[in-house]
Amino acid sequence: MIVVMQAHSNDETIEHVLTFLKGHGLSGHLSQGVERTVIGVLGAVGPSGTHSTAGGLNPSISEALEGLPGVEQVLIVSKPFKLASREFHPTNTIVEVPVSCMSDGVARIGGSAVIMMAGPCTVESEKQLMTTAEAVRKEGAVILRGGAFKPSTSPYGFRGMGEDGLKLLAKARDAFGMAIITEVMTPTDVDMVCEYADILQVGTRNMQNYFLLDEVGRVDKPVVLKRGMSATIEEWLLAAEYILAQGNPNVILCERGIRTFEKMTRNTMDISAIPLVKKLSHLPIISDPSQGTGHRDLVSAMSLASVAAGTDGLLIEVHPNPDEALKDGAQSLTIPQFRSLMPQVNAVARAIGRDVITD
Amino acid sequence: MIVVMQAHSNDETIEHVLTFLKGHGLSGHLSQGVERTVIGVLGAVGPSGTHSTAGGLNPSISEALEGLPGVEQVLIVSKPFKLASREFHPTNTIVEVPVSCMSDGVARIGGSAVIMMAGPCTVESEKQLMTTAEAVRKEGAVILRGGAFKPSTSPYGFRGMGEDGLKLLAKARDAFGMAIITEVMTPTDVDMVCEYADILQVGTRNMQNYFLLDEVGRVDKPVVLKRGMSATIEEWLLAAEYILAQGNPNVILCERGIRTFEKMTRNTMDISAIPLVKKLSHLPIISDPSQGTGHRDLVSAMSLASVAAGTDGLLIEVHPNPDEALKDGAQSLTIPQFRSLMPQVNAVARAIGRDVITD
Amino acid sequence: MIVVMQAHSNDETIEHVLTFLKGHGLSGHLSQGVERTVIGVLGAVGPSGTHSTAGGLNPSISEALEGLPGVEQVLIVSKPFKLASREFHPTNTIVEVPVSCMSDGVARIGGSAVIMMAGPCTVESEKQLMTTAEAVRKEGAVILRGGAFKPSTSPYGFRGMGEDGLKLLAKARDAFGMAIITEVMTPTDVDMVCEYADILQVGTRNMQNYFLLDEVGRVDKPVVLKRGMSATIEEWLLAAEYILAQGNPNVILCERGIRTFEKMTRNTMDISAIPLVKKLSHLPIISDPSQGTGHRDLVSAMSLASVAAGTDGLLIEVHPNPDEALKDGAQSLTIPQFRSLMPQVNAVARAIGRDVITD
Amino acid sequence: MIVVMQAHSNDETIEHVLTFLKGHGLSGHLSQGVERTVIGVLGAVGPSGTHSTAGGLNPSISEALEGLPGVEQVLIVSKPFKLASREFHPTNTIVEVPVSCMSDGVARIGGSAVIMMAGPCTVESEKQLMTTAEAVRKEGAVILRGGAFKPSTSPYGFRGMGEDGLKLLAKARDAFGMAIITEVMTPTDVDMVCEYADILQVGTRNMQNYFLLDEVGRVDKPVVLKRGMSATIEEWLLAAEYILAQGNPNVILCERGIRTFEKMTRNTMDISAIPLVKKLSHLPIISDPSQGTGHRDLVSAMSLASVAAGTDGLLIEVHPNPDEALKDGAQSLTIPQFRSLMPQVNAVARAIGRDVITD
Repeated sequence: MIVVMQAHSNDETIEHVLTFLKGHGLSGHLSQGVERTVIGVLGAVGPSGTHSTAGGLNPSISEALEGLPGVEQVLIVSKPFKLASREFHPTNTIVEVPVSCMSDGVARIGGSAVIMMAGPCTVESEKQLMTTAEAVRKEGAVILRGGAFKPSTSPYGFRGMGEDGLKLLAKARDAFGMAIITEVMTPTDVDMVCEYADILQVGTRNMQNYFLLDEVGRVDKPVVLKRGMSATIEEWLLAAEYILAQGNPNVILCERGIRTFEKMTRNTMDISAIPLVKKLSHLPIISDPSQGTGHRDLVSAMSLASVAAGTDGLLIEVHPNPDEALKDGAQSLTIPQFRSLMPQVNAVARAIGRDVITD
Repeated sequence: MIVVMQAHSNDETIEHVLTFLKGHGLSGHLSQGVERTVIGVLGAVGPSGTHSTAGGLNPSISEALEGLPGVEQVLIVSKPFKLASREFHPTNTIVEVPVSCMSDGVARIGGSAVIMMAGPCTVESEKQLMTTAEAVRKEGAVILRGGAFKPSTSPYGFRGMGEDGLKLLAKARDAFGMAIITEVMTPTDVDMVCEYADILQVGTRNMQNYFLLDEVGRVDKPVVLKRGMSATIEEWLLAAEYILAQGNPNVILCERGIRTFEKMTRNTMDISAIPLVKKLSHLPIISDPSQGTGHRDLVSAMSLASVAAGTDGLLIEVHPNPDEALKDGAQSLTIPQFRSLMPQVNAVARAIGRDVITD
Repeated sequence: MIVVMQAHSNDETIEHVLTFLKGHGLSGHLSQGVERTVIGVLGAVGPSGTHSTAGGLNPSISEALEGLPGVEQVLIVSKPFKLASREFHPTNTIVEVPVSCMSDGVARIGGSAVIMMAGPCTVESEKQLMTTAEAVRKEGAVILRGGAFKPSTSPYGFRGMGEDGLKLLAKARDAFGMAIITEVMTPTDVDMVCEYADILQVGTRNMQNYFLLDEVGRVDKPVVLKRGMSATIEEWLLAAEYILAQGNPNVILCERGIRTFEKMTRNTMDISAIPLVKKLSHLPIISDPSQGTGHRDLVSAMSLASVAAGTDGLLIEVHPNPDEALKDGAQSLTIPQFRSLMPQVNAVARAIGRDVITD
Repeated sequence: MIVVMQAHSNDETIEHVLTFLKGHGLSGHLSQGVERTVIGVLGAVGPSGTHSTAGGLNPSISEALEGLPGVEQVLIVSKPFKLASREFHPTNTIVEVPVSCMSDGVARIGGSAVIMMAGPCTVESEKQLMTTAEAVRKEGAVILRGGAFKPSTSPYGFRGMGEDGLKLLAKARDAFGMAIITEVMTPTDVDMVCEYADILQVGTRNMQNYFLLDEVGRVDKPVVLKRGMSATIEEWLLAAEYILAQGNPNVILCERGIRTFEKMTRNTMDISAIPLVKKLSHLPIISDPSQGTGHRDLVSAMSLASVAAGTDGLLIEVHPNPDEALKDGAQSLTIPQFRSLMPQVNAVARAIGRDVITD
């Protein structure tokens, strides 16, 4: 249930609604726009096992709410995800990320431009990172990706450079003016990663790591939430809801392929998730064609397909020498490949009325 | 194994190679280009259970072949599909379909233009078909789709108008100058469907109906081979190989979505299959975003994504009044939706250096 | 909708109901038991495109039916499959197959005993078939499996011995008194295969080959219908419905594994399909652990699991020398392995109150 | 690589091998049996990005190792999982759990008996837990399951009673003498959960939560590791390897169904995983037919199938009043259903030469 307040309703009337909700065992989540405040009503579920009642509210409660001063309308949101739904927030959410290399100092993910994010899968060394960052920045990427904490299927695989990797990312930011996106894998690392990163990434294996979702919901950095490798779109939006419900509105979804029977690709990119998420939710969505395919030969085509389908950004693995990469070299573009991709992305973006802002 | 003959080798030397192969229990499949003839060597497998030996040829046989007059080179094709592989036929196959409404009288599927195929899922009546055909032709479609024989999951569902439907399709071809594509479901219907259709379609449920593949391999009409709903790309290309091995070179692959755990879409379109098939094979590939998604709201985005990824054509369901369709109304575009899609397709096609020829 | 007639209702009253249905554009499917006749009401769908109305009958029709003489009750079947549903036929269907080696001359599939069906994947030669048949008969199998027509993923693979293979199967039947189960792949072969086989098999690739389903529905041999490799249970029961709707009541379902992301097994056997089908349908269900796993090391465990879950029979590939098999050797048991499996199957069958009748 | 020491080799020779490995940038993992010590050689991967070399050892290192005093044999383990592989540890691992209600005070998971674990999905109240615990104990369960921390797909769902739930579980243990298994969801909770639980459970969503795996690898409680909902068997064994590599040898795998296209069941239980895991690994494996199916009507059949396939234990949800359960009521057995299941499980266990020890 969502309570839409009248335009310019004052704090007192809002407080009154919240108190009313509390009195009925519910809680309210404020979404304050320029003209209007909207309150998402959440059923409170405590350790005593009190059941959520948000789904099956007594009609008299919604009627009573409509009668409160300042309330314009009470809407029932039919979807299990509420704050993430377009019913709750009809206009697109635009996530703003400060980027010093851009002329107006900010990248707007979910806005009219397609945002290019590129860099190595994994931070391996200062030289590798700086070379890659310089190259991708030169071609127009404004956000630098690079893993310092890496999920490795095997305990004997490379698990990343840790905080040393974060420091190198910060150094690259200083050098090239790009914003940094990097993965955080466990709740206790969130604060530390926030010291270095501009955007936190929650990986596919952690899409339902609820303690981690709660924690990234409490910070003020944007969060890229990758789709779980066998997550339905509903489950994915419910994972986003965890973050939103903690008060962090800056969630960016990332399609990175799902697991199917097909063996020739690492994953099967579900491109239809892009328009479907746009329909169901106001949150921006970006694409990761590197993880999505596992083969660099397919990355360009899937980048263009993503843009044509409406993606708000591309997250692309680039490595100066993919054959020597410690991780996922087979899916990393070379720098020349990234260079030739950029104008193609731009052309397709323009064809659908968008563009790519590179500075 | 593939035997590449020297340029301008004469019939006698070719015959000599074929005789040699026959003498070793093998057979040869001729592919005669303008300058050069290539012979695909197939292991013969007879009712006596003789095993295929093409995969494990005695080295002396390939060496002996190389020594025959007129033989330039003997190549081992590493893929299980041979005639369908790009190793066998490095340049793109272009399937030519006579279309009287086009200025030069032919649609070239696999050429530089993206070919638009549209029409109702199912032929329901003369009025429905004619209305739709006229409208999609007016907007630029050059090939008319429409099912006369329909696979129905339930025996109590509508199974199509049969030959009466084919007659209506032929009437629409006469009226609007479009070519006709329609499904054939069983070997004994192939000749009858060929009397009316310009392109035969083998549906997803029949991708491994080998008797049907053999039969459409024996006729001279192009065949659209839809991907099985859980077929790997290798299995799909092997199904194409059945048709090619019977001598019909005009096979067009069609990605129409695969079955996954995601429930919000009818199927998950595997857009990465488009560039992957282009890499592995010389055959053209088209996309069916209607079956691929099951929701008309997603059809436009997935059409554009397909074009951006390199599709050679779009097969789109359009219905004058989708809510009254006997079958699959939810995934059919309305005529105004199809009208607004066309310039978008054109724009994306141009962005990647292709176009859409509408007449 | 199902019309249940009063006990011992006469032909005239039944005819009256059928005439009434016809007058309303519907048709009736008779199921005549010892005491009672039940009429399944099917919506008629003709080439003119008349829609099925069975799903959305006018209440007045069902009321009118209830008022007809001899009608005891009119039931609405909620499932899309009707003749296959347990609502329609509450007791288990028992498919009787004449087997001369059995003491009472008949195997009852769906009865209290688990029926053992074994033999080679493919008939390769008289020696191979006779050796295997003799061995599996000796160990207690009463039905001999063996493919004469084989679906091969590649056109260059072995496609079976054809009618010669059927003749060998008939010879093995004469020699060892077993019944024969073998695959039929295309409608025009049905009559020919019926001349030799006791049970027809429709393979996984043909589960939705509707022309084939229609055709095997018209003959009087039992049909084993394998689950399509990505067929839902509902689709499978609807495929069975095709056969039943043509008048052949002797359909046996066969779980043979579905396609999933797991690569270590050829398919993932859905053992839960066994109790689920038993709940939804009255039809017998058997298991094919050879196709279901692709590895002979897993066949015994999956045979026992199937029996524990309630399977009515096992269809097991056995080869005298699996390493030399033309097809699927890796999943064939050796004869000693089959020998050691039999007492285990018997023990598990007894543990759940069934047994294995071997003669 | 695995170094097998001679029988009764002393600490000095072992230390010598470890020093040798260290000198070559490798580390050794000791597995000390009664007569013999085996050392698993792991490639060390540090934050500096040093690559694992365990997979591609210089032959001279393995030869040098073979020449060291006390070394009997050096084996290369071909699988990516090493400590989890049967090559490393040929005999079954038996995980011993102290259970005071049992006559000899210990349940041996992986031994000859099938161990019954039952209880509510979620601890809801003292009354609910005590009623269920008393009932399942009476019927023969020796381990009590119950979630205090619950993964909930929605942030508005019930997330469990937390430590209060753990206290109730401990109370039930005291009252009925059962051991307690309960889920731990995040690394910082591991110590706290260990204070109450006898067996830790890592849930399906956390199978690749590597920080959590590391943490449960450091404690001395057995760990049940549920298969990820789309995890391959190789990934699952690699997740177990994380725990083993930290020094906790008591890992119990749990098959709980995988995600497929089938919609009638919550998951598709991969029963073939049971014999396959037994072949690949020495670790015990149990089954969760409640999560595996999502329907109580299927739980009994899938329990029996699991036992027939070789499962070492069953983890079954039981609720005194499933219709009022806060979570997953539809898949919980009633107490009478559990009562009638027990003798069936016993009968099938005996049929395959095992049994069920209930006290």
